[in-house]
Amino acid sequence: MDTLFKSKDYLPHLSVDCVIFGFHGHKLKVVLPKLKKVPLCSLPGGYVRAQESVNKAAQRILRERTGLENIYLEQFCVFGESDRADPQVLRDFLVSNNISIAADSWLMQRFISIGYYALVDFSQVTTAVGAFDESCEWYDVQQLPDLAFDHADIILKALETLRLMLDHKLVVFNLLPDTFTMKELQTLYETILDKPLRRDNFQRKMLSTGILQRVEKKFTGAANKAPYLYRFWTMP
Amino acid sequence: MDTLFKSKDYLPHLSVDCVIFGFHGHKLKVVLPKLKKVPLCSLPGGYVRAQESVNKAAQRILRERTGLENIYLEQFCVFGESDRADPQVLRDFLVSNNISIAADSWLMQRFISIGYYALVDFSQVTTAVGAFDESCEWYDVQQLPDLAFDHADIILKALETLRLMLDHKLVVFNLLPDTFTMKELQTLYETILDKPLRRDNFQRKMLSTGILQRVEKKFTGAANKAPYLYRFWTMP
Repeated sequence: MDTLFKSKDYLPHLSVDCVIFGFHGHKLKVVLPKLKKVPLCSLPGGYVRAQESVNKAAQRILRERTGLENIYLEQFCVFGESDRADPQVLRDFLVSNNISIAADSWLMQRFISIGYYALVDFSQVTTAVGAFDESCEWYDVQQLPDLAFDHADIILKALETLRLMLDHKLVVFNLLPDTFTMKELQTLYETILDKPLRRDNFQRKMLSTGILQRVEKKFTGAANKAPYLYRFWTMP
Repeated sequence: MDTLFKSKDYLPHLSVDCVIFGFHGHKLKVVLPKLKKVPLCSLPGGYVRAQESVNKAAQRILRERTGLENIYLEQFCVFGESDRADPQVLRDFLVSNNISIAADSWLMQRFISIGYYALVDFSQVTTAVGAFDESCEWYDVQQLPDLAFDHADIILKALETLRLMLDHKLVVFNLLPDTFTMKELQTLYETILDKPLRRDNFQRKMLSTGILQRVEKKFTGAANKAPYLYRFWTMP
C-alpha cells in the first residue's frame, strides 16, 4: 500500500473525505464504499497530491473511489482532533487484506481530514468500486452501517451544514430530476430538515424566491388534474 | 527560525490563520500584526503541533500572536491552492530580519491553511505583539493594509461567512458591550451586511427572535427620552 501511495507524492497528515447526498424514495441517502474483508464502510476519501489544490484532490478522489465525475463539492469542516482515527481499524483492514506496510509509514500517522459534501441526482448516478472496496452503495442516512474512524460524525456534521445552507444556496437543485412537483420539492425539504412543513407557507415561500419556473401543461382537451411541474431556472 | 519551529514538533504543510473581527465607531475591524521590517501585515497565524487538535492550535496561535485569550473561534474554510503563498514574500521577510533558514526547511514548503474567524468586544481587547511582529493593531475591513500571501482573500471569505451566519447564529453577541440600544444593534447589522435596513422591520424581527432582554429604565420622576437598552439573554 505504501508502494501505491508513496510519501513523496502526497502531503503527509492530510486527507479528504466526501459526503455525497442523494434523494430517493423520500429518503436522504449517502454513497459509502464498503471496505474489503472488514465489516466497515467508510466515506469515499483519499490523499492530496504534493502539487494539487485541495479542491481538485476532492474531485479526483471522488472519481477514483465512486466513479462520480464533475460533481459540485463544497468544503464544510476540518476534522482535526489528534485521536480521531483509531489506528487499530487501519491495522485490521491491512491484515485482513494481506497488505504489508511499514510501521513508520506515513499512512500510519495522524491525519487531519478536510470534509466535503455534495448533492447529486440519485437517478443519474452509477457508482463504481475503488481498489480497496468490496462495494459502493447508497445508504439511508437514518440507517447508516458501521463506519470507520469518525466518519459517522463527519456525516452528521455534513447534514447539519446542509440544513443550514438550505435557505441560502440553491443546493437542492442538484438532488432533483429536471422537473418535479411542488409536493416533491416539499418532501425533499421535509426529509432534509426532518420535520413537517406547512404546505401553503412552503409553496408561497418557494414561489416568492423566483427560482422556480412552472412548466406549462399541454392542452389535451381532456380534464387535467395532474399537478403542475416545476423546474429551476437555469443558473446564469 | 527553523530552530524555533522544529519540523518534528509540528505537522508539515499545515497552518492556521485567524480573522478576528471587532466593531468600533460604526466600522467593522480586524486585528492584524504588522511583520517586522517588511511593509506587510499578515493574519495572526501559525502551525499545528504534532499531537495538538487543530482547534486548540488556533486558540494557542491567537494567544501567542495577539495576546487574545479564550476567544470563540470558528473554522470557516480551508485555503488549499498549491500557489497560494508566494515564497518570495517569506524570503524577503527572512532576509530583512537577518533570519537564516535552510532552503529545504519545512517552513519553505507548501502550506494548506485552515481559516478561523472570531468576533470580540473591541472595548475589552488589548492586543500584544508576537516575536516576528512590529505591531498588532485594528484595521478597518474597508481599508486594509497590504497583506502577505492570500490573506486579503481569507479576510473577504471570512466576511462572506459572517454575513451568511448572521441569521443563524448569535455571533454578533460577541461584538457588543453588555447593553446596547436597538439603533446600535441595527448599525452593527448594517455595517456587517454593508447595506441599510428598514428600522421597523429590523426591530420587529429582532424582538420576535426572543433573544433580546429589555433593560428596565430606572424611574426618576423626570421625563425620560433615552432609548431603551437591551442585552442578550444569557446563553444556557
